[in-house]
Amino acid sequence: MERLSLNQATVKHLSLADAAALCVRHGIPAIGVWRDRVAEVGLDRAAAAVRAAGLHVSSLCRGGFFTRADAEGLRAARADNRAAVAEAAELDADTLVLVCGGLVPGQRDLGVARRIVADAIGDLVSYAQQLGVRLGIEALHPMFCADRSVISSMDEAVDLALQFPADAVGVVVDTYNVWWDARLVDGIARAAGRIAGYQVGDWVLPLPQDTLLGRGHVGDGVIDFRPITAAVTAAGYAGYVEVEIFNADVWAAPADLTAAKVRERFAAI
Amino acid sequence: MERLSLNQATVKHLSLADAAALCVRHGIPAIGVWRDRVAEVGLDRAAAAVRAAGLHVSSLCRGGFFTRADAEGLRAARADNRAAVAEAAELDADTLVLVCGGLVPGQRDLGVARRIVADAIGDLVSYAQQLGVRLGIEALHPMFCADRSVISSMDEAVDLALQFPADAVGVVVDTYNVWWDARLVDGIARAAGRIAGYQVGDWVLPLPQDTLLGRGHVGDGVIDFRPITAAVTAAGYAGYVEVEIFNADVWAAPADLTAAKVRERFAAI
Repeated sequence: MERLSLNQATVKHLSLADAAALCVRHGIPAIGVWRDRVAEVGLDRAAAAVRAAGLHVSSLCRGGFFTRADAEGLRAARADNRAAVAEAAELDADTLVLVCGGLVPGQRDLGVARRIVADAIGDLVSYAQQLGVRLGIEALHPMFCADRSVISSMDEAVDLALQFPADAVGVVVDTYNVWWDARLVDGIARAAGRIAGYQVGDWVLPLPQDTLLGRGHVGDGVIDFRPITAAVTAAGYAGYVEVEIFNADVWAAPADLTAAKVRERFAAI
Repeated sequence: MERLSLNQATVKHLSLADAAALCVRHGIPAIGVWRDRVAEVGLDRAAAAVRAAGLHVSSLCRGGFFTRADAEGLRAARADNRAAVAEAAELDADTLVLVCGGLVPGQRDLGVARRIVADAIGDLVSYAQQLGVRLGIEALHPMFCADRSVISSMDEAVDLALQFPADAVGVVVDTYNVWWDARLVDGIARAAGRIAGYQVGDWVLPLPQDTLLGRGHVGDGVIDFRPITAAVTAAGYAGYVEVEIFNADVWAAPADLTAAKVRERFAAI
C-alpha cells in the first residue's frame, strides 16, 4: 500500500482538501492532483493542505495542449505550461503530466501537430530543470488523437522523451491508453530510467458515449495488468501507482466506498 | 472514377441487387460486398447479379473472428472462414477482408489471442490459395481491440501477413482505423506488394455512442487522405478504392444522394 496513489479525478466531486482527507482516512499515502482543484483554493493553500495531510503528490495533471499554430494560442499555451511547471514545483509533484494536444484547430496535418509538440516541450525543458520538475509525456489512446493528443503510442512518447535530458522529460504509462499495443512491453523497456509515472484504470466494455469515461476500477475490465506492471518495474520505476478512473458511475458512488475499492483492487494486482 | 468502389455497408439498408443497381446508375464500377447480403439471396444468385450488373467485387466482408479457445468455437470459426473463402472465390472478389477478433471470451491475454489469429490464418492459407482467394488482414482501430480485432496497427497487420505467401495474404488499409499512427507510412511501405485493399472513411468528431458508426464521408472529418493514398500507391497498390461508411445519418439519407456524394468526394481526393 505504500506505493498506492489516488488520482483525485477518481473522486471528481471532492475538493482537494476533501480528497486529501479521504486518502488519509484510507491509508493512501499519495495523491494525483488536478490543477483546477488547486486553482480553487490557491496554490499556497493547496500545497500547505497536501503537506499538512502528510501526502506525497505523485503527479500534477496536467500541462500540454500545445498544438496551436496562431501566435496568440502559442503564447497562451506557453504561459499556461510555465504556470503548470511552477505549480508542480510548489507541490513537489513527482511529475507534471503532459497531455500534448490534438490536431491544430482547422488543420489535418498530424506531422505539423507533432512537431509543434516537440518544439513546445523543448521550449519548456530548461524552465522545468531550473525548478526541478520532471515532465511526463503521456501517450493517449488513439481514439483521442484528433482532439486531445497526437502522441498516441508508447513508442511515440518514448521517441519524444529521448530527445531531452532524462531528468527533465520522462513518460507516464497509463494502462487505459496503451494496453492494446503489441509493442507496449518493448516500448516500456525503451523508456528505462524515463518512467515518470504509472497510472492504472481498466478498459470496460461497452464504451460509454463519452469515451473519456470508459475507465473502470482495476479488475472490472479486460486489461491484463501483470505484464504491464512487470515491464514498468523492469524499466526501473519504483514510484507510486496512481489509480485514475473517469467514470460516471464511480463518480456517483460514495467517495469512501470508492477509496476502499481502490485499495482492495490495488492489493489484488 | 474507374478505381472507385462502393462498399455496400455505406448503403446498409439496400439489398445486394439494389446496391448493385445503385452503383450502375452512378457509374461506380466496383462494389464491396457483405456476406449477410449474399446469404439473403444465395451465393449463386448474388454472384450472377453482380456479374450481370458488370460490377467488379473489390472485397468480400468479412472473415475472421478467429479468437476462440474452445474446440466448438474454433471449429465453427474454421468452418465459417472456409465458407467465406469459397464465397470470395465465387464472387471473384479481390480480397476477403479479415477482421481477426478480439480477446478470447473470458480471457485477458492479448498474446494468446494474437497467436490464435496467426494460427487460424495459417490454417486457412492453403485453402485460399487453392481457390485463388487473397486474404486481407485489416488492422482495426485500437478502440476495437478488446471486442473486434486484436490486430490494432498497420505494423502488426504487416508482421502477420509477412509470415505467409504474398499471393495468399495481404493487408487491407482502412483510413478510419489507422490514420492516427505515427508509423503508418512506414508500415504501408513495409506492405509493398501486399496491399489487398484500400478502404476510405473519415474520422468525424464527436464520436457517436457506438464508435463503429463514427465514420463520415471523405472530407467531413479530420483525416488527411493524401499522404495515406500516396503511401498506398507507392507500395504498388493499383486496385479499387472502396468507400466504406458506417454512419446512422448516412444510412438515413436517400441512397442516390449518398452515391452522388461518394463520387463527388472521391473526385476531390
